[in-house]
Amino acid sequence: MSRPPHRPDEFALIRRLWAPLARGFADAYGLADDVAYLAPGGGLLGAGEEVVLKTDAIVAGVHFLADDPAELVARKLLRVNLSDLAAKGARPLVYLLTLMLPESYDEAWLERFAAGLAADQGEFGIVLAGGDTVAMPGPLALSLTAVGAIPAGARLLRQDAKAGDAVFVSGTIGDAALGLLALRDGLAGVSAEERRFLSERYRLPRPRLALGERLRGLAHATMDISDGLIGDLEHIAAASGVSATIEAASVPLSPAARTALAADAGLIERVLAGGDDYELLFTAPPARGDALSALGRELGVPVTRVGSIREGEGVVALDAERRPIKLAHTGYRHF
Amino acid sequence: MSRPPHRPDEFALIRRLWAPLARGFADAYGLADDVAYLAPGGGLLGAGEEVVLKTDAIVAGVHFLADDPAELVARKLLRVNLSDLAAKGARPLVYLLTLMLPESYDEAWLERFAAGLAADQGEFGIVLAGGDTVAMPGPLALSLTAVGAIPAGARLLRQDAKAGDAVFVSGTIGDAALGLLALRDGLAGVSAEERRFLSERYRLPRPRLALGERLRGLAHATMDISDGLIGDLEHIAAASGVSATIEAASVPLSPAARTALAADAGLIERVLAGGDDYELLFTAPPARGDALSALGRELGVPVTRVGSIREGEGVVALDAERRPIKLAHTGYRHF
Repeated sequence: MSRPPHRPDEFALIRRLWAPLARGFADAYGLADDVAYLAPGGGLLGAGEEVVLKTDAIVAGVHFLADDPAELVARKLLRVNLSDLAAKGARPLVYLLTLMLPESYDEAWLERFAAGLAADQGEFGIVLAGGDTVAMPGPLALSLTAVGAIPAGARLLRQDAKAGDAVFVSGTIGDAALGLLALRDGLAGVSAEERRFLSERYRLPRPRLALGERLRGLAHATMDISDGLIGDLEHIAAASGVSATIEAASVPLSPAARTALAADAGLIERVLAGGDDYELLFTAPPARGDALSALGRELGVPVTRVGSIREGEGVVALDAERRPIKLAHTGYRHF
Repeated sequence: MSRPPHRPDEFALIRRLWAPLARGFADAYGLADDVAYLAPGGGLLGAGEEVVLKTDAIVAGVHFLADDPAELVARKLLRVNLSDLAAKGARPLVYLLTLMLPESYDEAWLERFAAGLAADQGEFGIVLAGGDTVAMPGPLALSLTAVGAIPAGARLLRQDAKAGDAVFVSGTIGDAALGLLALRDGLAGVSAEERRFLSERYRLPRPRLALGERLRGLAHATMDISDGLIGDLEHIAAASGVSATIEAASVPLSPAARTALAADAGLIERVLAGGDDYELLFTAPPARGDALSALGRELGVPVTRVGSIREGEGVVALDAERRPIKLAHTGYRHF
């Protein structure tokens, strides 16, 4: 019940660490007022644009390692939210940040955390608009609300998959799940460099913002892969009232993932059902496949067809002989 | 590092507890998509309105008692954020909610929590637009982002206090700080009923939304009192580049607070510097005092002049003989 001592002073931190992250966004008033404003047509938000809202939280020991570098924690938090904006074709505008800080996180840690945010703000064109810092008698916990914009009428939803659509993904699938395995238990048969690559894919998602914006008008249903390819495709199928088939042999793999699978074929389950890839998953008419491949080449992010949408319900993964692959569970829940 | 078991399933909870709280807000898509949308002029957000953004978090054992009723925790979380919208004259639109849940909070607790939100949604005209639920290997922690709207050009800021303004507050001051004292250490000289009144004032703030909206065009600088009357007035003084004087004898007290002060005059420090009242604090030209009093009577929320704004810097509280009251600390920091 007692309020903790002021260590370090919240207002001093706002001035020194957080206000610089709000620079360039006049309507946050240097984080010295109670709220931030978005004026349609008057600043970041263009006339004729809609606001897109998303919130996602991460907790030490659940979503990242308690001793992960502060920069990495900051960037992961920002990126898991940016990935949702990407999946909706949204342009990032601003974010609000809540830090729940145990005593052991000192000012030096916060400085590195702010440096991580600054780096990603520059990379992804988003700026801090407000936040809250509270004392946490428990693990470090972070919550972020990301605000983006889309042109009015250009929503990309989960519910728009149509029977006859093809299913596409960006990038490579399964790296993050294998990376988590490598961090936790080691991972047999891969080189140190491959292990590093997979771990990085787990630790630092790459929100596909440029691709997402270009999917407007091309894709039907869209989302990002956070719970796993199969589990997230189940969300699209359920929201759209359709069924989906994944051809496992078509799922794009990184060289490192291919090495791991060669050593242990059973890891295909991790690839198909593991989470945290933060690639885009979407459906589109098969005839748009060539345009989507060309778009992927243009942006340097492979776009690969991995399956099909049909009437019905549920999601099935097929092996190279088109036999259903039995999965123990189809997606990690965030909770 | 391990993801916790699904207890209870996040998606089942969304359907059963959270989606009903988003009913009436079509652009949240029943919480079945990744984001929610605000379309200017196309739904909740009127044409010619600006978006107002605020986030605030609370943690068990820091901002509320771990065994506080779930309904009360929900309502306090919502209300501390609504209070900021009130202070900015904003009309509440939607909110995003992050729950960080220890294992001990079961589905029955969540049901009561959702019931608390539903009650306050009805009272304050706000609706759930999205959120996240994550496992917390620590105390219950909650973060909320509130989104409101104001007419374009009608911002009420901290920085607009002018030398010559009078300082006003809504309601009565110090009740929450005395209520917290009553909950923690008991409080001498007050009746059981007075103790209950004060505790309720701590546990369940009353965001002054109707008053806030009517302050547009009447008030200069505005904010809500969360850190304490003196501490929050310091924020206004610093942001506006002015100084302020509080006349302690003018500060409006509840009968219960008056009883407590009669028993222990030293409690005046709690009244002036204690936090959590969530009343409005604002400056306006003294000539508007009558209009403000009339407005307070109309809305059933007393508006009282408590001090003055001058050139200079800093905040001083004066006793009935106009001697400065020495305060050990002038405001609680939230961190």
